[in-house]
Amino acid sequence: MPTAAPTIPDLVAGLGRGERRALARLLTLIEDGRPEQLRELVRSLYPRTGNARVIGITGSPGVGKSTLTDAITAELRRRGRTVAILAVDPSSPFSGGALLGDRVRMQSHHADSGVFIRSMASRGHLGGLSFATPQAVLVLDAAGFDDVIVETVGVGQSEVEIAASADSTVVSLAPGMGDGIQAAKAGILEVADIFVINKADQAGAGKLASELQGMLELGHSLEEADAAPGWWPPIQRTVAVRGEGIEELVDAFDAHDRHLEESGRRAERLRQRAVHTVREIALEQVRRRFSHLDDGQDPVLESLAAKVAARDLDPYSAADELLEALEGGR
Amino acid sequence: MPTAAPTIPDLVAGLGRGERRALARLLTLIEDGRPEQLRELVRSLYPRTGNARVIGITGSPGVGKSTLTDAITAELRRRGRTVAILAVDPSSPFSGGALLGDRVRMQSHHADSGVFIRSMASRGHLGGLSFATPQAVLVLDAAGFDDVIVETVGVGQSEVEIAASADSTVVSLAPGMGDGIQAAKAGILEVADIFVINKADQAGAGKLASELQGMLELGHSLEEADAAPGWWPPIQRTVAVRGEGIEELVDAFDAHDRHLEESGRRAERLRQRAVHTVREIALEQVRRRFSHLDDGQDPVLESLAAKVAARDLDPYSAADELLEALEGGR
Repeated sequence: MPTAAPTIPDLVAGLGRGERRALARLLTLIEDGRPEQLRELVRSLYPRTGNARVIGITGSPGVGKSTLTDAITAELRRRGRTVAILAVDPSSPFSGGALLGDRVRMQSHHADSGVFIRSMASRGHLGGLSFATPQAVLVLDAAGFDDVIVETVGVGQSEVEIAASADSTVVSLAPGMGDGIQAAKAGILEVADIFVINKADQAGAGKLASELQGMLELGHSLEEADAAPGWWPPIQRTVAVRGEGIEELVDAFDAHDRHLEESGRRAERLRQRAVHTVREIALEQVRRRFSHLDDGQDPVLESLAAKVAARDLDPYSAADELLEALEGGR
Repeated sequence: MPTAAPTIPDLVAGLGRGERRALARLLTLIEDGRPEQLRELVRSLYPRTGNARVIGITGSPGVGKSTLTDAITAELRRRGRTVAILAVDPSSPFSGGALLGDRVRMQSHHADSGVFIRSMASRGHLGGLSFATPQAVLVLDAAGFDDVIVETVGVGQSEVEIAASADSTVVSLAPGMGDGIQAAKAGILEVADIFVINKADQAGAGKLASELQGMLELGHSLEEADAAPGWWPPIQRTVAVRGEGIEELVDAFDAHDRHLEESGRRAERLRQRAVHTVREIALEQVRRRFSHLDDGQDPVLESLAAKVAARDLDPYSAADELLEALEGGR
């Protein structure tokens, strides 16, 4: 590390003074994922977190998530709230200001100091985004934003998991994208607090809404009064590109927020988020013990692999031997 | 397990007799990921693997990978080779015959016993596809297919990793999909043995090819004679939907195959694949120790999370305590 680089206490102090550069550097630090730095950072920031409302927005490519996020941001700003957007794309190695989309999007809010936009990518380290995202949210929370929007591309398992660590999770759909099939995708019915059908002016929006409604009713009747959630996910139609339906959507965020408060479920969400963060950190520590095996320099793994390649040993027995060697401490 | 269900030795025997049902069941077993079954299965199959040529095909959604794979398959069949296709979609929970695409695709080859198509999804278990894919390849290899094509959606880290465990890795691109940006995506320059520009009849194909060529030359001059690979990845243009360029592409597979043989790099690839498989199995064993933490029933994690949610403890210290408790064996 160059001697001129600011230390973590410097950056944390800068964050406290509202400095954007300190914020950006801290997020880069999280992406880089250097274990000891992360530990120091999270420890020092943690006591001042817990104030932001975290909104997860997920959905397949093509539903117009970015436009939706931008429109939501504009409405939240109108209501006097500051907004941080974390755009998480598991399929992209780009991050920071590097992605073209970021720059295009910045333009509509770039004069507004109440908005911060950042895209984040996995940079190929093992824990990936399910490890980095909750920690980036902590930084944005500590930076004092009223709302932190975590926008994730796709509705795969990890994206759903990322979204599910939010206070409110929005699952966005659009007509003509596989309709029924996309709605049935992994776990979205369980994680969604609010559904958005974007591009609601296009053909098929009504059909998609009724399909979704039907699936929700089916799911509800199957679960019966399971845990009595007391919250029926609304299906909000929007045309984000023209700002239509956005006010009602943001009202739905507030309604969900009140529900969390009044039902006592906010505490449950906070606990869930804590479980998620702690487990991901613990799993990352374990993964790290394996990370030196990535560079092809581990003699035990190399010798086992040679036997496996020669079909002299099966890979399960080799894995057993590897674990024994690793845990023996060597 | 119902008593009538075939045992693993039954299924392995069925596989040896060329029974498709046994093959399909074994793949389902791998997807389900029950540890002891997998171990027994891989151990008994392993000695008869190592004969198939494994071709990885990766690329962003929209480049026409499925059409490309189908066209390649038709050409390989014309050359008298049997083909198994494993379509891996990390963003989909669907698998087996469940996905509509599978059925559509089956039609062109359904009367052909020399072709087997299977899509595979992660089913949400922790290790996911980077764990399951190499093991599914082992089964297809043991089933006696000449070529096993592993088609992965996206060019994210895990997809690249999956493709990289092949003998030959094809990275497919198409004009008008972000061009330069997509070509720069994580690690594709390093893993690609062959580039395909599909939809080469569309505007921008030439530009994409020269951009790619430029990046390859840059990468090459930076690496100099690094490890003297002796293989310059060809850029093959195709219009898969009309079968154009497919013969030349399959010729390129053969050329790469000869290169691997003559340069002695085949042994290196086999060793790499073994490293990959062994490491993934070992990592999965470790992940499994964490899997009981997923259901929210672990008292240690719950109590730590409550402290973290209350901001009485930071998540790193909580993770340390969790690991200590887990490794203490409790």
